[in-house]
Amino acid sequence: MDVLPSWRAGPTRTAVLEFLAAARDVPVEQRVAYFDNDGTLWCERPSYVQWDFLVDQLRQRATEDPSIAQQPEFAAVLEARREAIASIGLARIAVALAGLFTGLTPEEFAGRVRGWMATAVHASGRPVRSLGYRPMRELIELLRADGFTVGIVTGGGAEFLRAISGELYGVPPDRVVGTSVGYRLTGGDRGTVVLRRTARIVGDANEGAAKVTNAQTQLGRRPILAAGNSAGDAELLRWATAAPGPGLALLLDHDDAEREYAYEGRAETFTAAEAVGDTAARLGWTRISMARDWATVFDTDTDTDTDTDTGTSGR
Amino acid sequence: MDVLPSWRAGPTRTAVLEFLAAARDVPVEQRVAYFDNDGTLWCERPSYVQWDFLVDQLRQRATEDPSIAQQPEFAAVLEARREAIASIGLARIAVALAGLFTGLTPEEFAGRVRGWMATAVHASGRPVRSLGYRPMRELIELLRADGFTVGIVTGGGAEFLRAISGELYGVPPDRVVGTSVGYRLTGGDRGTVVLRRTARIVGDANEGAAKVTNAQTQLGRRPILAAGNSAGDAELLRWATAAPGPGLALLLDHDDAEREYAYEGRAETFTAAEAVGDTAARLGWTRISMARDWATVFDTDTDTDTDTDTGTSGR
Repeated sequence: MDVLPSWRAGPTRTAVLEFLAAARDVPVEQRVAYFDNDGTLWCERPSYVQWDFLVDQLRQRATEDPSIAQQPEFAAVLEARREAIASIGLARIAVALAGLFTGLTPEEFAGRVRGWMATAVHASGRPVRSLGYRPMRELIELLRADGFTVGIVTGGGAEFLRAISGELYGVPPDRVVGTSVGYRLTGGDRGTVVLRRTARIVGDANEGAAKVTNAQTQLGRRPILAAGNSAGDAELLRWATAAPGPGLALLLDHDDAEREYAYEGRAETFTAAEAVGDTAARLGWTRISMARDWATVFDTDTDTDTDTDTGTSGR
Repeated sequence: MDVLPSWRAGPTRTAVLEFLAAARDVPVEQRVAYFDNDGTLWCERPSYVQWDFLVDQLRQRATEDPSIAQQPEFAAVLEARREAIASIGLARIAVALAGLFTGLTPEEFAGRVRGWMATAVHASGRPVRSLGYRPMRELIELLRADGFTVGIVTGGGAEFLRAISGELYGVPPDRVVGTSVGYRLTGGDRGTVVLRRTARIVGDANEGAAKVTNAQTQLGRRPILAAGNSAGDAELLRWATAAPGPGLALLLDHDDAEREYAYEGRAETFTAAEAVGDTAARLGWTRISMARDWATVFDTDTDTDTDTDTGTSGR
């Protein structure tokens, strides 16, 4: 197989390749694909990578200024008190943590993210920068080779992901849509200006319907392929298949306890009564089974399959 | 001259080429250039092209439904009463006109723009789609060939320009930032969704400091080249030269009554007391004199100069 080598032969890989073949008849300016990030392009367990970054930055700050540990949101995080975190709410804590960077320029913030990413190690023991899923990177590269514009629509912070999206996925900052902080423009020396982060979140957190409205507002085009893994991606996936013509919605099912995770409570990802596969079937989406469809999971791993299926479904 | 053939040899063209040479030492991900649109990439006189489109759409709507002419904003436009328009204010009228498209999908709106553009004729007698400045298109192409990411940051409607930015300038929709309408996501048939325009403008009109904060929020990178022609572009231009390293701010001076316009009241573009050239000199910007620096103005025109300067300042 010369394309998608980390995808095992089978109905999922075939569905992707059939979509790509059909998309060749779509005008190139309509070949647009959007991916969710956490849990779709890279591992999101046991905690979001951005969360790990924020906690690291909070610990550093608390070393310099112990008084900030008195703020309830920060105290709960620093003492890793799960109940306090749950009672305050992750959303409020995330906003408080984002406020740690108030006053930084975008370039200073990006520098902090990149500096942390260069050496941070995930709970799994992998370098954080190696948490990307190789099959998804292959898919992105194949889409791009076929003239697709590839964007990422994440519930996480836009500027966090933009700092690393080029290195991780070859996606430039202007094709990343996420939850956004506000900026303040101040006068600088000699007629120049300085842009600084505020503590304010602009608009809604980028989840659910906001993923669609924010993607339209910022990227200006409807996708014909969308990939996600949770209820927060449902509207994005529905959008990709909403118009006539080729459309593909990919739903990644974390069912691989051996190589990544088999999500406990998977059936609750969409509704309490429905498994991921049933949701996909009902809505005409293509379920990706991590356990069944991927020969390799992580970007830096070697193939786990013997390559016995050459030619059976290559293009 | 094999590059920028529509630019006459002289200090302006030399400044552009020297910047491009210096930018080759800038990491490619920092090679970012943003252009204003109206009056910078195409003609904005005697009226904005988007205004002409809106008036055309209003007239069509008033034919179908004469009662809308009773709304004061629309009556003033339909009867072309300058004093009434001035008294209501262009901003309020623009919002009312944007409301004409409430309920359309983004694709339907783009279709209307493209349909109008295909045949619309400018007050000058040129087709509207030929109002682009050829020297600027050459500059965009040269920047792109040198690895630059080129975006447009317009005070006009984002979705209006996105419908035509690819054809006019080769700039895709996701690299256009403008004044944005809100969207509403509604459920469609069979689990799909439909995105529809609202009458609401999201955030601030994209002028002045908002050009900088919106460009950072949506495109995620600071430019090292910015081009504009009016006070609404001042912050954008200052941003491009705010950091160490190569930076170029281009200010187009409409001083060409013969081929385009010599703006009456040019001195008031920035401050009442200062000519455009003085503003540029004070802030370290490069003034482009349309009359002096451009051999050809419009994209579809033939050269007006005899090509006698071959080799004097080519690369």
